[in-house]
Amino acid sequence: MDDTKQRALEIHKKFKGKIETGLKDKVDSMEKLSLYYTPGVGAVSSYVAEHPQEARDYTQINNTVAVISDGSAVLGLGNLGALGALPVMEGKAVLFKSFADVDAVPLVLNTQDPDEIIAVAKAVAPTFGGINLEDIKAPECFVIEEALKKELGIPVFHDDQHGTAVVVLAGLTNALKIKNAKLEDVRIVIAGAGAAGIAIAKLLKKAGATDIVMTDSRGVISGSRTDLNEYKQEVSEWNIRKLSGDLAAALSEADVFIGVAQPGIVDQAMIKSMRKDPIIFAMSNPVPEIMPEEALAAGALVVATGRSDFPNQVNNALAFPGIFRGALDNKVVAITDDHKIAAAEAIASLVAAPTPERIIPDIFHPGLAQAVAQKIV
Amino acid sequence: MDDTKQRALEIHKKFKGKIETGLKDKVDSMEKLSLYYTPGVGAVSSYVAEHPQEARDYTQINNTVAVISDGSAVLGLGNLGALGALPVMEGKAVLFKSFADVDAVPLVLNTQDPDEIIAVAKAVAPTFGGINLEDIKAPECFVIEEALKKELGIPVFHDDQHGTAVVVLAGLTNALKIKNAKLEDVRIVIAGAGAAGIAIAKLLKKAGATDIVMTDSRGVISGSRTDLNEYKQEVSEWNIRKLSGDLAAALSEADVFIGVAQPGIVDQAMIKSMRKDPIIFAMSNPVPEIMPEEALAAGALVVATGRSDFPNQVNNALAFPGIFRGALDNKVVAITDDHKIAAAEAIASLVAAPTPERIIPDIFHPGLAQAVAQKIV
Repeated sequence: MDDTKQRALEIHKKFKGKIETGLKDKVDSMEKLSLYYTPGVGAVSSYVAEHPQEARDYTQINNTVAVISDGSAVLGLGNLGALGALPVMEGKAVLFKSFADVDAVPLVLNTQDPDEIIAVAKAVAPTFGGINLEDIKAPECFVIEEALKKELGIPVFHDDQHGTAVVVLAGLTNALKIKNAKLEDVRIVIAGAGAAGIAIAKLLKKAGATDIVMTDSRGVISGSRTDLNEYKQEVSEWNIRKLSGDLAAALSEADVFIGVAQPGIVDQAMIKSMRKDPIIFAMSNPVPEIMPEEALAAGALVVATGRSDFPNQVNNALAFPGIFRGALDNKVVAITDDHKIAAAEAIASLVAAPTPERIIPDIFHPGLAQAVAQKIV
Repeated sequence: MDDTKQRALEIHKKFKGKIETGLKDKVDSMEKLSLYYTPGVGAVSSYVAEHPQEARDYTQINNTVAVISDGSAVLGLGNLGALGALPVMEGKAVLFKSFADVDAVPLVLNTQDPDEIIAVAKAVAPTFGGINLEDIKAPECFVIEEALKKELGIPVFHDDQHGTAVVVLAGLTNALKIKNAKLEDVRIVIAGAGAAGIAIAKLLKKAGATDIVMTDSRGVISGSRTDLNEYKQEVSEWNIRKLSGDLAAALSEADVFIGVAQPGIVDQAMIKSMRKDPIIFAMSNPVPEIMPEEALAAGALVVATGRSDFPNQVNNALAFPGIFRGALDNKVVAITDDHKIAAAEAIASLVAAPTPERIIPDIFHPGLAQAVAQKIV
């Protein structure tokens, strides 16, 4: 890991960042200059202003998304601010281009005020065909996304929420095939009630889950607690067995554990307290809630993590490039829960015969982004 | 011209815009993915957050500028709004990259409120190493630029003002060599008191001009008028002969005409009323204030326009790519009047022996951007 850190710093310094402006055509003559810039471009500007619905045919809008962050929740590193967020946003742009030929523009903001973030995103929106929100902490991320979805006519997608939720649903779909169980019938525990946890709970519920118990730093989220924001309150309704107490209490007799919380909070005794053949998604990164070998030794049927050096890496990059590819190609104005569920099904279906070591496809799986994109219609 | 319009529309539609995300390195392995994205990028984010002064070494900041417009004054076409501005901003990005290897990011805004534009530019500023304001009408452009210059630690440059002023000063420097006259001694008339006109007046004054008469749609700008904004008031002080009346009155016995106004407002009689060997910059585009052949027939010594199909094209693209190249390379935090004057001298000096048909270099002149960049220190 230290070696990876060192090499990451070196390669970033070598190239001084990761992205640049690419030109679709060379401008090497006065002729070309007069078409792409004055005087020719004036005709394009006038035409686009008069026919705004055709702007996509003449500008970057058809293929360009903004990747906007306030740096308030960068990876698992916390509030690093705008500059700290920029390497991640550039990385996101690299993935958008590499995996789905989507052009992405990082925008890191020196404000963390939701109203200001909303105002900035609304102001720059005419430049883009979509907005990917990134590494914005909860609950502000919910407020920002909801406001922008309501006010803008282009897709707005907070990847930390929905990208994660889509890939978890994809992985869980295949893990349940191995367990020979149905989503409707299993007891699910989600540790971590931030952006990802809430979105995972909502999408699993939408996809058919009936028994979802979520925990945060104060323990099980139940309707009897008085400290819940509106998002946690909604989730508390799916705690149908009215559990309370700590994470250990929640895991007792559960079938599925989904961790988007902290390193090492699950031990082997908790795994053993779960029902037979438990499914464990320990996605705290880089150190999972429980290490895969420990979970397997304690009886886990399937273990997934966020890491590339273990089997079953739950990686948002399986979802977001294809989701925006499809949204742009099909001029989708909003990415709905149905889109997300269809995307998860597409990802899951790329693994023809799931095994405990392979419930989700590799990120370099041929045709992955296109398979997802076809579902965003 | 109609043919150029048609071909401009066609080539824009063919490529669907002009720019895309370029990748500095290929991401074709899990190894590369782990360096450019998680987990490796986390080390870069942490390092940059802790050492903000080194952010340029690890991110796009070192080479990336925002090209921001509200679309309120697109070319000479007027208020086309955000979408209408986008083709021009993409074109600007093409020129930045083609001529000076500067990466540029168009941002067109759906607000024309100066306070909101300032707030948006301040919010996105951490993403960039500079801000190029573009096609924002006067007097709002002055307010916006002044506020951003004061509040941001990166270069902010409204190209319609300063790019134009730099190239006019470069051209005028060489035209005066042909006329064998000094800037201090000539009578200058500027028609058009928008962003470009005001900036030209200010830069010529700073460079040594003493006698500058400006006209707007109501005639000569003089201290006796009561309808002047603060910018026109400042310019009125340089009307040292206390002229009033219309453009014809201003041109009588003048040496230099600089038009950034409207087609056809100057006739041959006005040229003939000027002092011997007048210098005419008729930059209304695409139709100049007077056609070059008419001006020459009436006695003009040198004629420049904004068009590429006549000699002496006054084109901002001679200046802005090199100015930002230098500002980024030399970590310049503000582009000063001294920078602009030095840039104009650099451009002028590339024409070793000016003639009436060649007072400014071609935009494809080898080493142009680098010659300008070296002055921005």
